[in-house]
Amino acid sequence: MAGLSVVLLAAFSALLALAAPSLAGDPDMLQDLCVADYKSLEGPLRLNGFPCKRPENVTATDFYSDVMSLPGNIGNPVGSATVAANVEKVPGLNTLGVSMSRVDYAPWGVNPPHTHPRATEMLFVLEGSLDVGFVTTAGKHFTRTVYKGGVFVFPRGLVHFQKNNSGVPAIAISVFNSQLPGTQSLAEAMPVASLPEPTDVLVRALQIDSGATVHVV
Amino acid sequence: MAGLSVVLLAAFSALLALAAPSLAGDPDMLQDLCVADYKSLEGPLRLNGFPCKRPENVTATDFYSDVMSLPGNIGNPVGSATVAANVEKVPGLNTLGVSMSRVDYAPWGVNPPHTHPRATEMLFVLEGSLDVGFVTTAGKHFTRTVYKGGVFVFPRGLVHFQKNNSGVPAIAISVFNSQLPGTQSLAEAMPVASLPEPTDVLVRALQIDSGATVHVV
Amino acid sequence: MAGLSVVLLAAFSALLALAAPSLAGDPDMLQDLCVADYKSLEGPLRLNGFPCKRPENVTATDFYSDVMSLPGNIGNPVGSATVAANVEKVPGLNTLGVSMSRVDYAPWGVNPPHTHPRATEMLFVLEGSLDVGFVTTAGKHFTRTVYKGGVFVFPRGLVHFQKNNSGVPAIAISVFNSQLPGTQSLAEAMPVASLPEPTDVLVRALQIDSGATVHVV
Amino acid sequence: MAGLSVVLLAAFSALLALAAPSLAGDPDMLQDLCVADYKSLEGPLRLNGFPCKRPENVTATDFYSDVMSLPGNIGNPVGSATVAANVEKVPGLNTLGVSMSRVDYAPWGVNPPHTHPRATEMLFVLEGSLDVGFVTTAGKHFTRTVYKGGVFVFPRGLVHFQKNNSGVPAIAISVFNSQLPGTQSLAEAMPVASLPEPTDVLVRALQIDSGATVHVV
Amino acid sequence: MAGLSVVLLAAFSALLALAAPSLAGDPDMLQDLCVADYKSLEGPLRLNGFPCKRPENVTATDFYSDVMSLPGNIGNPVGSATVAANVEKVPGLNTLGVSMSRVDYAPWGVNPPHTHPRATEMLFVLEGSLDVGFVTTAGKHFTRTVYKGGVFVFPRGLVHFQKNNSGVPAIAISVFNSQLPGTQSLAEAMPVASLPEPTDVLVRALQIDSGATVHVV
Amino acid sequence: MAGLSVVLLAAFSALLALAAPSLAGDPDMLQDLCVADYKSLEGPLRLNGFPCKRPENVTATDFYSDVMSLPGNIGNPVGSATVAANVEKVPGLNTLGVSMSRVDYAPWGVNPPHTHPRATEMLFVLEGSLDVGFVTTAGKHFTRTVYKGGVFVFPRGLVHFQKNNSGVPAIAISVFNSQLPGTQSLAEAMPVASLPEPTDVLVRALQIDSGATVHVV
Repeated sequence: MAGLSVVLLAAFSALLALAAPSLAGDPDMLQDLCVADYKSLEGPLRLNGFPCKRPENVTATDFYSDVMSLPGNIGNPVGSATVAANVEKVPGLNTLGVSMSRVDYAPWGVNPPHTHPRATEMLFVLEGSLDVGFVTTAGKHFTRTVYKGGVFVFPRGLVHFQKNNSGVPAIAISVFNSQLPGTQSLAEAMPVASLPEPTDVLVRALQIDSGATVHVV
Repeated sequence: MAGLSVVLLAAFSALLALAAPSLAGDPDMLQDLCVADYKSLEGPLRLNGFPCKRPENVTATDFYSDVMSLPGNIGNPVGSATVAANVEKVPGLNTLGVSMSRVDYAPWGVNPPHTHPRATEMLFVLEGSLDVGFVTTAGKHFTRTVYKGGVFVFPRGLVHFQKNNSGVPAIAISVFNSQLPGTQSLAEAMPVASLPEPTDVLVRALQIDSGATVHVV
Repeated sequence: MAGLSVVLLAAFSALLALAAPSLAGDPDMLQDLCVADYKSLEGPLRLNGFPCKRPENVTATDFYSDVMSLPGNIGNPVGSATVAANVEKVPGLNTLGVSMSRVDYAPWGVNPPHTHPRATEMLFVLEGSLDVGFVTTAGKHFTRTVYKGGVFVFPRGLVHFQKNNSGVPAIAISVFNSQLPGTQSLAEAMPVASLPEPTDVLVRALQIDSGATVHVV
Repeated sequence: MAGLSVVLLAAFSALLALAAPSLAGDPDMLQDLCVADYKSLEGPLRLNGFPCKRPENVTATDFYSDVMSLPGNIGNPVGSATVAANVEKVPGLNTLGVSMSRVDYAPWGVNPPHTHPRATEMLFVLEGSLDVGFVTTAGKHFTRTVYKGGVFVFPRGLVHFQKNNSGVPAIAISVFNSQLPGTQSLAEAMPVASLPEPTDVLVRALQIDSGATVHVV
Repeated sequence: MAGLSVVLLAAFSALLALAAPSLAGDPDMLQDLCVADYKSLEGPLRLNGFPCKRPENVTATDFYSDVMSLPGNIGNPVGSATVAANVEKVPGLNTLGVSMSRVDYAPWGVNPPHTHPRATEMLFVLEGSLDVGFVTTAGKHFTRTVYKGGVFVFPRGLVHFQKNNSGVPAIAISVFNSQLPGTQSLAEAMPVASLPEPTDVLVRALQIDSGATVHVV
Repeated sequence: MAGLSVVLLAAFSALLALAAPSLAGDPDMLQDLCVADYKSLEGPLRLNGFPCKRPENVTATDFYSDVMSLPGNIGNPVGSATVAANVEKVPGLNTLGVSMSRVDYAPWGVNPPHTHPRATEMLFVLEGSLDVGFVTTAGKHFTRTVYKGGVFVFPRGLVHFQKNNSGVPAIAISVFNSQLPGTQSLAEAMPVASLPEPTDVLVRALQIDSGATVHVV
């Protein structure tokens, strides 16, 4: 069992590197604009979201970003990389309830099973083709192949994944009804590191006896 | 003045051809899925949104569409065409509060000033470059050029536009935090056809005397 | 065309004088009261809405205003004046999601086409009678005459107007489901001042050739 | 005690006659319009709100009402009468989250303590002057006199009242951020009729011994 | 009449002792956590809710409380005591829209008629049995007996009560869809202390002549 | 690898038996009550939530249930059983945004890692003591022991678990700000059954080579 724990903990670090920061939601707007003032992050307190810059300090650049113009580094174990244009990169998104990201996939690369706790995702395939799917809380699986130019929807809060189904790179543009949707990976869902005898929980959850072992190459 | 009215009415028909249907919003989800049942449109009553298909009739295809894989027809007076992947095309979007659209621009083409009454828009430039801008309710203008790979935000309900600033075609992917954001064009904002002496309202609004004339080529 | 630009820019200044500040919405209440503390406007940061006064400093006067007891100045080009009792005048409205305004109309005066980006408006005719109307995002016009004691509804985000249809002054009481609904006038919707060659956008939008001219008395 | 019960039961019927129907709220809009189809009330099921008329059946009159042009009958024990222009009278208000009412007051007439469970109220004094007030959940009272042309705010869900403080009639226009706010009077708050020995609850609530009596003229 | 006022004022103080603080609601979450920083209460301004602790200062204890492990003091006139585990006791509840409370009842004890302005309540009977009920805004009463292990629902904003219907103590666990639902008791609904001649309002509301008297043992 | 898949598929069936139906949310209330009419489930269409019974058919029993008075069957592989009092059992909860459940734990029993996509959970320990925890989207773990009478909060959408940390049975009462929160278990998060070569996704997600094996006793 310890062997499996080690493997999972290794997977954690790999997947945590892909996890977006933990914000998400869709606030009520009380004004046209509430451009995030990042300086407030230095203060002692935080808000649910961000406070706003003074109007006289807001410029068109607060609503712009070129962060999605280049791919992320797909040289990682899962073979995919996400670059997010969210409220942490585009301060003008604060209170507006929407954001985007770009996902690049190596040949046969995978964006592993994960959830966005507070956003629905809609994915547009820009290059290549993907096998995608999600699972409902009743355990029903919806999966299909999405080709270049196609879109697919992952409902709010449900576990979903994408997999490049060919030997050529793929690119997707994803959109969220949240200024910072957050990402919780399946690996993080295994609280191995968090209990007095953590493996007990995993053993009961996966119905594996304590003698189970996993061999890693 | 009558001349101007005629011109505007002509502009209406051109722009109305581009107007998306009039739905928009972000409902509260009471279940994982509420896939729109288009058959309900034949009934005597309508809902705010759509009723749901029975779960046993839902398939992965309800969450998929290839409508954005081809450009719209940009052979129109303004030189742009929008193809929307919203709840009218992707029934699985019902109650999920998000949608996308693809906008193609002819050289120097314009997506004329318009609003989305109940959605914020985030635009990603896929090809070419665009001059974009929006106006706040205080009358402040925010404009800039967005190059390939760049994003820009148009806050909910505010008038905005895009213009292809070069002689080569351009393409944008727009996203909305609404299942069907709706589009109200500036021309529709002129209620020329709606009063006993409609031109009076326009004259007062634009501060033009009744003798004003506009020559059309 | 330059002539028209000049006229429109003149119209802007006239209409901007009527534009309410750019706030609107309907927040979630987390407490009975959150009376706006205007002093916070002096600080470096702003919120989406206002912070609250300390409870011990709140008095009944925070929920009261007599600002609507007198008419605004209707001596302007459009012949109407709006006096708003919103969160900027009644601090107790903060977080409560409602506000009112009084509109006075000169004989044949017009409240020009405009939108409230984040509020529905319901209008009550206190004196005189008005021709009113709004336009849906599908371009359908709904208009009628409203007599003294009558009410009419302008749905959230849609362009609407009122016109005094007689030679005697008129008064209306308008209500909004927002603490500060904001107003975006049709004229502001024309981004003449915001592009390298702004008139291009207008020409494409209105389908007017560059030779068009407008004569002003 | 029984005597007091009788008196209260008498008060109920008087106050119930003033109670508005029990709806209130502020839904999410998924389309420009969802005009209530009253015919649906004949069906076996109801919705949270109303279903919509088919768009082709909607007319400008759906957004209009003259119900507030005449006063209600103030010939009742409390000396006030409310006429509401809500979604039951103005079908176009459905899903739009706002409504109005007109309150007429006899000399020294009272609109007795009541709550609107799901709406904030803002009151405009059209004629005369009123003593008004509300109570917070912490038991703090906010009261003052509002003169002709003045406004006052009653925060969502809190008990409030108005009293004509002079010997001449008064009129108020009230607005709500709900399509049908509902009214729960103080008298209804006493569940005298609802228990095996109802007076027990009242005795414990009011700390009155069973021997208490009230003499009615 | 003065006698009744005195009795009511006495009841106020008894009931005020039971009133929870005046907060309630269900905000939009923009991040996983926004743990209330109580230190902010020392500052000059307040928010709608609380600002958040810096993430590095959050611990598991912020999400824990044992306040409900002991009963409140039921040695009061009404014979019930409420202990709340809300955002004022569990800082981790801030922005999460839920809270609980424990109610202990003396034999035949009453939780007097009250409302929670911004929350629905669901009650679970842990020990004993209760007669419970609520009243709709249309004045319809819904009441029944709930035995050990049973649950009952009190819809948002409506007046409701519970009464121990036996000679043995009872305990209930109540839950709310608000981080701090607030409680407004029926007694607070009587603004006796808030007008120049307060008793006038009560006389008109209860239809009692000024000569009415109440004898207290 | 195939071995592990088999084990996981076995775990699925065990965990699926514990999964609550897939509804959750917090709607806007437009009326006091909208009691779910279960008969509507026989019709061709479904709503987001339920339609309402006609008011004349609503009784107090619609707001009552004794389903939580008895434990579920804990004779299952994970050693815990959940009994839910949600809108499927208590029709009066429809549109009210709250529900409860009872969880019974065998000695050392586990409620395996899971999420509620659209609700925050607050747990009250009725008997025994539990080790509990949740994981943020940033991968931070918050865990502790909760003793009899203690409460703990699991923020909306985040993976969490409970484990009976002793040899005696335990009982918890959980509450949700949703009428039907839904449950997605960790096992369902592994889409083993949903791809052409499903194990590939798992291999990439867990970083296990295809030669990995798991021995089951």
